[in-house]
Amino acid sequence: MLKFNLKTTENKARRGELITAHGTVQTPAFMPVGTVGTVKAMMPETVKSTGAEIILGNTYHLMLRPTAERVASFGGLHRFMNWMGPILTDSGGFQVMSLSGLRKITEEGVSFQSHLDGSRHMLSPERSMEIQYLLDADITMAFDECVKYPAEKKVVKASMERSMRWAKRSKEAFKDRDGYGIFGIVQGGMFEDLRKQSAQALIEIGFDGYAIGGLAVGEGQKTMFSVLDYTPDFLPLDKPRYLMGVGRPTDLVGAVLRGVDMFDCVMPSRSGRTGQAFTRQGVLNMRNACHMDDHTPLDRDCSCPACRNYTRGYIHHLFRCGEILGSMLLTTHNLWFYQDLMKEIRSAIEENRYQAFHDSFMNRFADDRKM
Amino acid sequence: MLKFNLKTTENKARRGELITAHGTVQTPAFMPVGTVGTVKAMMPETVKSTGAEIILGNTYHLMLRPTAERVASFGGLHRFMNWMGPILTDSGGFQVMSLSGLRKITEEGVSFQSHLDGSRHMLSPERSMEIQYLLDADITMAFDECVKYPAEKKVVKASMERSMRWAKRSKEAFKDRDGYGIFGIVQGGMFEDLRKQSAQALIEIGFDGYAIGGLAVGEGQKTMFSVLDYTPDFLPLDKPRYLMGVGRPTDLVGAVLRGVDMFDCVMPSRSGRTGQAFTRQGVLNMRNACHMDDHTPLDRDCSCPACRNYTRGYIHHLFRCGEILGSMLLTTHNLWFYQDLMKEIRSAIEENRYQAFHDSFMNRFADDRKM
Repeated sequence: MLKFNLKTTENKARRGELITAHGTVQTPAFMPVGTVGTVKAMMPETVKSTGAEIILGNTYHLMLRPTAERVASFGGLHRFMNWMGPILTDSGGFQVMSLSGLRKITEEGVSFQSHLDGSRHMLSPERSMEIQYLLDADITMAFDECVKYPAEKKVVKASMERSMRWAKRSKEAFKDRDGYGIFGIVQGGMFEDLRKQSAQALIEIGFDGYAIGGLAVGEGQKTMFSVLDYTPDFLPLDKPRYLMGVGRPTDLVGAVLRGVDMFDCVMPSRSGRTGQAFTRQGVLNMRNACHMDDHTPLDRDCSCPACRNYTRGYIHHLFRCGEILGSMLLTTHNLWFYQDLMKEIRSAIEENRYQAFHDSFMNRFADDRKM
Repeated sequence: MLKFNLKTTENKARRGELITAHGTVQTPAFMPVGTVGTVKAMMPETVKSTGAEIILGNTYHLMLRPTAERVASFGGLHRFMNWMGPILTDSGGFQVMSLSGLRKITEEGVSFQSHLDGSRHMLSPERSMEIQYLLDADITMAFDECVKYPAEKKVVKASMERSMRWAKRSKEAFKDRDGYGIFGIVQGGMFEDLRKQSAQALIEIGFDGYAIGGLAVGEGQKTMFSVLDYTPDFLPLDKPRYLMGVGRPTDLVGAVLRGVDMFDCVMPSRSGRTGQAFTRQGVLNMRNACHMDDHTPLDRDCSCPACRNYTRGYIHHLFRCGEILGSMLLTTHNLWFYQDLMKEIRSAIEENRYQAFHDSFMNRFADDRKM
């Protein structure tokens, strides 16, 4: 059982808080991704210092290395990785389709080969629940199937219907405890009627929160927003909504306008390792020689350690030399930028000026939509 | 002018402090290496938290990238890299021999090709002094020539004599300021008479400190100690002595017994990135599967963040997955271990029990000598 308080709304935009066994999360919230038990290139205290209140862990990666049983023997994922705040784990459904080798899907679940060593494994709703329980996830995700985009409607429909049967089995296998919860995942591709059927099926089962899956798979922002124009309306007002794997700053701002409360994405951390910096003046590629003699910070309006203590010229130098500190500083900055954005989003909703904030932001960050 | 206070001695072992423009350094001291303007995988505040009071920067690397002139335009190396404590820079002499491509040595200096892009450069005593001035090094090293080991005595002698002529030119080109100083470098290989001639030549020129170069080049600890049995005796008591590029924990403990005050070495940081941990129980290879289920810290007597908050099993997992955090944690721990060792060394000298500390340490860490 998770408690979610909806504090205030502005049209569809929502300002809430989610109370978990490991702490409270202010929403709208962005969750940094800690794939194998580390937000890459970051100390957990640095992740926390960015303002992040919850992180995401990956069932698929962790079941292969170090294994869920081993994480449990270390006292769960929080203690294993020294992140004492809330953790959401995905179900493995998405990554078993995108990463694993030879796989076979049946009604029972998915048998597959590890992308690391070819060893054989199985994921089913029951096994996914068991893994997420062993990891001690505050928020467990129902096990679902993800289809490729684009796909024919009948394929999307059959897959969604299977995911709903798996959602029921997930809920039944989930061990409920105070401060722990399970989210269902709405599927149905870009089809409104399928999204509606999926949402209704999940509501009938009853979840602590509802995720919107199957987006950010290459459909483009416009199409994604069109799905978000109706899908949140199919969901209960009093439960959190989580848009999985999204996204760019304008994606977040646009999705909040449409009623989404939670997000996760590798973008700020992955971009940080490849030299991309999100700033209030746009996206910078720190590998570019134009930064070589630049004595200014990444973002003059940012108060992160990278912006307080280092110049663009120094960060460029680090990337040019392939230095780990470059990844560390830029990941810190990018996560800080995302969390600052979430703070601004939350304040704007509280102060009933979210529509104006949204319009201005979408204008200023028009470029990020082309990324 | 640098001020060096010799606070107390126990036989040849010395406890002192070196006062520089950017702060005071307690000796015996170990300097972490920050090759291109970063101690690899470390935030400078984390370097400081290990107890390090001074770091080393490399003239050769920095002159190529980002160039000394560019570092100067950023306000010097301290500001460029956000390390506000003292910095010692080497002269480039050692690395131009070990890293650069085609090179030509004349009495004037060394012309060479960059190992990065093949571009042509020149280092001479005057140019090395200019670069170290531009970097704003608290301690500048005289430009010297390094011969390969082993080498015939006549080769070592000729090279040492040239290094002494270059030392004189270095001293003449060095711009003296309060809190800044220049160290000469004793050469002469494994030959006592050459070491003595070299030391006398340097003393005649007059330096703020004296380094012992040309060791840790593959001669082995026993041979190195035999050179250290006599070389420090050729040097003035009231100036710091710096053993360049050394070393393993037992190297430091044995060299302090023989009268050395300062050290630098990539070992703790480089080992940290490859999975090697220095502990009071010996050296561990964290990649070994034996650590997979180990719930204990790296070193139960260490108070570093890696030991306080993480298990051997977790650190093993990070290395197994190639995660940057593994390098971050292990570098932090290893530098902490080295600085803890320096603290123990300093306390033991202060309390007049260094010989006993030395004997016990050499016994306990006998294995590290085989590394």
